[in-house]
Amino acid sequence: MKVSVFRRAHFNAAHRLHNPNWDDARNKAVFGLCNNPNFHGHNYELEVKVRGEIDPETGMVLDLAWLADLIKQHIENRFDHKNLNLDTLEFRELIPSAENICLVIWQILRTHIPQTFDLLVRLYETPRNFVEVGDC
Amino acid sequence: MKVSVFRRAHFNAAHRLHNPNWDDARNKAVFGLCNNPNFHGHNYELEVKVRGEIDPETGMVLDLAWLADLIKQHIENRFDHKNLNLDTLEFRELIPSAENICLVIWQILRTHIPQTFDLLVRLYETPRNFVEVGDC
Amino acid sequence: MKVSVFRRAHFNAAHRLHNPNWDDARNKAVFGLCNNPNFHGHNYELEVKVRGEIDPETGMVLDLAWLADLIKQHIENRFDHKNLNLDTLEFRELIPSAENICLVIWQILRTHIPQTFDLLVRLYETPRNFVEVGDC
Amino acid sequence: MKVSVFRRAHFNAAHRLHNPNWDDARNKAVFGLCNNPNFHGHNYELEVKVRGEIDPETGMVLDLAWLADLIKQHIENRFDHKNLNLDTLEFRELIPSAENICLVIWQILRTHIPQTFDLLVRLYETPRNFVEVGDC
Amino acid sequence: MKVSVFRRAHFNAAHRLHNPNWDDARNKAVFGLCNNPNFHGHNYELEVKVRGEIDPETGMVLDLAWLADLIKQHIENRFDHKNLNLDTLEFRELIPSAENICLVIWQILRTHIPQTFDLLVRLYETPRNFVEVGDC
Amino acid sequence: MKVSVFRRAHFNAAHRLHNPNWDDARNKAVFGLCNNPNFHGHNYELEVKVRGEIDPETGMVLDLAWLADLIKQHIENRFDHKNLNLDTLEFRELIPSAENICLVIWQILRTHIPQTFDLLVRLYETPRNFVEVGDC
Repeated sequence: MKVSVFRRAHFNAAHRLHNPNWDDARNKAVFGLCNNPNFHGHNYELEVKVRGEIDPETGMVLDLAWLADLIKQHIENRFDHKNLNLDTLEFRELIPSAENICLVIWQILRTHIPQTFDLLVRLYETPRNFVEVGDC
Repeated sequence: MKVSVFRRAHFNAAHRLHNPNWDDARNKAVFGLCNNPNFHGHNYELEVKVRGEIDPETGMVLDLAWLADLIKQHIENRFDHKNLNLDTLEFRELIPSAENICLVIWQILRTHIPQTFDLLVRLYETPRNFVEVGDC
Repeated sequence: MKVSVFRRAHFNAAHRLHNPNWDDARNKAVFGLCNNPNFHGHNYELEVKVRGEIDPETGMVLDLAWLADLIKQHIENRFDHKNLNLDTLEFRELIPSAENICLVIWQILRTHIPQTFDLLVRLYETPRNFVEVGDC
Repeated sequence: MKVSVFRRAHFNAAHRLHNPNWDDARNKAVFGLCNNPNFHGHNYELEVKVRGEIDPETGMVLDLAWLADLIKQHIENRFDHKNLNLDTLEFRELIPSAENICLVIWQILRTHIPQTFDLLVRLYETPRNFVEVGDC
Repeated sequence: MKVSVFRRAHFNAAHRLHNPNWDDARNKAVFGLCNNPNFHGHNYELEVKVRGEIDPETGMVLDLAWLADLIKQHIENRFDHKNLNLDTLEFRELIPSAENICLVIWQILRTHIPQTFDLLVRLYETPRNFVEVGDC
Repeated sequence: MKVSVFRRAHFNAAHRLHNPNWDDARNKAVFGLCNNPNFHGHNYELEVKVRGEIDPETGMVLDLAWLADLIKQHIENRFDHKNLNLDTLEFRELIPSAENICLVIWQILRTHIPQTFDLLVRLYETPRNFVEVGDC
């Protein structure tokens, strides 16, 4: 029987929603306050779900300390206390919306987690707005 | 790849669980304290999930401000600070259980959200009791 | 050295804010949606703080199970799943605002908790609106 | 249409992660601090989801008071304020990892909940680490 | 008897901790990641406490809708979705640490709330780091 | 003007409430399930408040990273994943009630935090039961 394990982490970052192919009026109309050229920011809360079989020798699907460390190395170290638009390669061209940040995180983690496991990523931009990407 | 976006909202309301086809003893046995003829109430916390494709021009599945406004107009304005049994058309005949309230909210929102999106509604009646209805 | 112990409890109730000495227009202007004649309701979350000395024999300021039972008997049984305006003696004449409910709860508990202890009561009407009454 | 109802409960317990087939070094390497021979403990938060059809006579999928009582009798009474390794039959031979505890709870509840309902169990070991088992 | 009422609000902002009188090494040593020249950001959660007497005519210490509106006009509109260092007058010269942001908010609100009321402001920069300023 | 800064941390531990000067019946009567000879456990959530003046050069009352590290070294490393009764010197003779654990933590931290600062410690044993010790 498949079992899911979840691990939460967080990072704080600045960002701006802006489409360079549009003029200012359209950017303002679509993105509102999130288009502020001087950026604003969030406490991003991250929830990573991995689904697989329990290993009978350990009683665990996978080592949560390993998963926590993977998230720290590949996500927190990359995005924490950063300006997503200016300080990261991932969002040089891609709009750092919650949807895109979540998708990028899922793509990064997916390359590190064996294919025998399913992976879902949920990202809270605020307690009332959040997004989810994954294959389970 | 499909991405889900979530938005939370809330409303406060009074209600009573009562089946008019039953006598008082049976209503009391089935609904307990929730059958109080003078009503009681809750802070209902609502979580709406919409699943679809990311629009590459905006980086968003849909405009969360639009979704927040849709919830405000069609759900909060209808149910907030209301007596569900006495002040709403939806629960004149239908018992305002958490299940039915959640189903009614899903039905209302479903008519306003394009069919290319999947829709799930979760409703917290208390932090320990909640329900979920939807097609994703 | 003084130590404080806290216990949380909750109850769900309906209420209406209304001053019978005023006409409808003034009631509506002052209380807004909370003046709905058919009532609305809340999940009230209660936090009781008692401050005193640690008893060296038990390591406890007081028995929290005793405090939890006191709250259950005198507060939850009185107010849970009730219409505060119609079903309780306390709010026949007194407006059941969060402030007054909190003050009434403090007064009830104060008579049952020995004077060697200080007592503070906090009442959440919603997660964003709450009140506090007490002598510590 | 299928509707899901959720009920939360909790219990506090001590446990130790240890595989008796391994030597101390390997146990320490795999389980880390959780291998402490004198045990440590957690506030386990439990979330039970049951999915089924709404009964039109009650407006409910099932009686949440019945579900709460089932959880109390079969889960809380069995595990609350216990040492999972020493005080329970279930974890005499089985490592009481969050995954295994969640699976055992699902198996116990599954025997008591009619097969017309689907059942999912989520167990929080800490607010940042949790697991999920079920058929919906 | 004095009663306290509380109201929560929130705003999202970018900021940078930097003392222009210091060289880069010292700024880095003191402020760490928070010194990032491209800024980072937070979801600031604000909790405002006002203490006074209950008005017997309304049952309220003050109108929480008025307080919520005051916070919206003077705090949220000023700081929400802003870069505190670049977009606000208050933090042109003053380092936008949580302590200083909280003090500035207290000073702004203090001028608008009558002196018969005491005022306390708590500001969460993250769920684990927060500060408090006030006279009650 | 005095400003307070708060930092949260947590640790997981097993404990047992037992007074060796009493017989089993009295221990059972006073401590109930908490007297289980095989121990039970909790996720302890710790909240440390330090009150002082803002340093105008840093905008901070004290360096929260220093405070977080102090808590890690002196509290988390000492108590996390431990059996408080068996693995710690502090609770060899002293009953590890929430009140005593909180008092011991306050005493340990008080020796490390300069006397120009006031110190308050809050300890959550569960989300519904918590205690507080301090001089502010």
